[in-house]
Amino acid sequence: MSNVLVLGHKNPDTDSICSAISYAYLKNEMGMVAEPIRLGEVNNETIFALETFKFDHPRLVTQVSKEASQVILVDHNERQQSAEDINEVQVIEVVDHHRIANFETTDPLYFRAEPVGCTTTIILKLFKENGIEVPPNIAGLMLSAIISDSLLFKSPTCTKQDVDAAAELAEIAGVDAQSYGLDLLKAGADLSNKTLEDLISLDSKEFEAGDRRFEVAQVNAIDVEEVMIRQKELEVLMANTIAAKDLDLFVFAVTDILNNNSVAIVLGERSGIIESAFKSSVVDNRVLLPGVVSRKKQIVPVITEALS
Amino acid sequence: MSNVLVLGHKNPDTDSICSAISYAYLKNEMGMVAEPIRLGEVNNETIFALETFKFDHPRLVTQVSKEASQVILVDHNERQQSAEDINEVQVIEVVDHHRIANFETTDPLYFRAEPVGCTTTIILKLFKENGIEVPPNIAGLMLSAIISDSLLFKSPTCTKQDVDAAAELAEIAGVDAQSYGLDLLKAGADLSNKTLEDLISLDSKEFEAGDRRFEVAQVNAIDVEEVMIRQKELEVLMANTIAAKDLDLFVFAVTDILNNNSVAIVLGERSGIIESAFKSSVVDNRVLLPGVVSRKKQIVPVITEALS
Ligand SMILES: [Mn+2]
Ligand SMILES: [Mn+2]
Repeated sequence: MSNVLVLGHKNPDTDSICSAISYAYLKNEMGMVAEPIRLGEVNNETIFALETFKFDHPRLVTQVSKEASQVILVDHNERQQSAEDINEVQVIEVVDHHRIANFETTDPLYFRAEPVGCTTTIILKLFKENGIEVPPNIAGLMLSAIISDSLLFKSPTCTKQDVDAAAELAEIAGVDAQSYGLDLLKAGADLSNKTLEDLISLDSKEFEAGDRRFEVAQVNAIDVEEVMIRQKELEVLMANTIAAKDLDLFVFAVTDILNNNSVAIVLGERSGIIESAFKSSVVDNRVLLPGVVSRKKQIVPVITEALS
Repeated sequence: MSNVLVLGHKNPDTDSICSAISYAYLKNEMGMVAEPIRLGEVNNETIFALETFKFDHPRLVTQVSKEASQVILVDHNERQQSAEDINEVQVIEVVDHHRIANFETTDPLYFRAEPVGCTTTIILKLFKENGIEVPPNIAGLMLSAIISDSLLFKSPTCTKQDVDAAAELAEIAGVDAQSYGLDLLKAGADLSNKTLEDLISLDSKEFEAGDRRFEVAQVNAIDVEEVMIRQKELEVLMANTIAAKDLDLFVFAVTDILNNNSVAIVLGERSGIIESAFKSSVVDNRVLLPGVVSRKKQIVPVITEALS
């Protein structure tokens, strides 16, 4: 029998990669033959975490059905964010912290979603519920995921459970969460080796709201203007994506990780909804989003509501 | 602020009613103001359980949005099995053991589904995870749900976790699972006060497979022929339901709870799939299903597969 593949979403972030590795580790300890894989390139932040805690990059697999009949999804559940051929395999488990949509199975499965800030906060519970110890290097990856998803505990998605889990994991990993966390976020905000195509595609997710389709890309930055100075070139690429994917709206958000604000470029037939949805003026396709750092909690629900 | 309503599926079975009562109890102990409700008539089996452990029937509520802005779903997740106005309220939690389909939220939520035989098996874990004790009368209801969903541990949906949970709950409730269980199932199989309309509607669930819609009704019986002797009259009612709901297929299964077999009447434009799907001949719209007792595991996936 083939392995069970454990995968996070397309354009993987640190949580998707670290959840896949740590949950595959847990399942292996529990007697399943599970392998973490990734659906795309690993970002700079994740590379920093993997190097710090001495892990190889998970194997890149784009056609899961060629390798396995069963998969476990972590950090996502929506079909369009998963492997292209996800409908050809059986999803036997999901561990996630996002809204549930575009997900359907023929058989009952283990589905564990909780409204917390990071998937590895839930995975830590699963280690405990199954009586398995978290090794220090795995704890380091799980901590990295929480720091990444919560922007070092500053995102509105961050819950007390995430803060507590991070403290416990930092202790096991033997690192200081604050100083390691800042280094991790800075590594992720280093955009010097990024092309324009990278910026709008590396951490981009597609959503549906009624009949409407929209995409929200996000990059973290220390210096937001370094990105926004290239707005015109970015808009050309965004327009291409809109045409290629037949999107109604594309939002490209640049998040200032030191000041916890975002600036977004908005394009698409339905971009007119942005002003009233966010109560902020759009000037030259650009909008300021004070206090907005979370795509999941502060951007996607607002757009979904406005488009529906 | 209004109460949170806790509800099982339409045409409630013993698991739906007992899960709603026991999970609402747990949430109340955890500080939420939660009330169990029901979407329809309580069946004979459930009445037996409620009387044995001295509970009132939960309140009948058909329009949840008139009473609450937030609900918790137990023992189901598919929209068409829930309250008619489910889209007008926020689902804040789901505890279930069925396949996931036709379910979507705008925000992250607590979603706990496990591939076990009964919802209360999962609820027992949640009592433990939250450090809350199960009182004896609640334990009796939770045990009743496991016996009902597992046909006294004989259904292929029954797992070791269900058997272990039932043993633990029987101990707390102070009853013998086998003898109480047989009494419970017999109360449910007492069809003497049932009309023909009752038989095809009391435990009936609607499903979608691609563009196709089908419904599967099930009754438990001691004497299957007592029901099947009225096949022609049942077919008239089934045909009416097919027309009213625009179904492609209606399966009415009568399950022999002592011998663990079923006989089904199959009607609808797509009833031609039944013979090959179940590898059993359909004669006069009637098919024998040896060893089949579980709608969820032995009927719905087979039909879904065949219709897709
Ligand atoms: Mn995440
Ligand atoms: Mn059930």
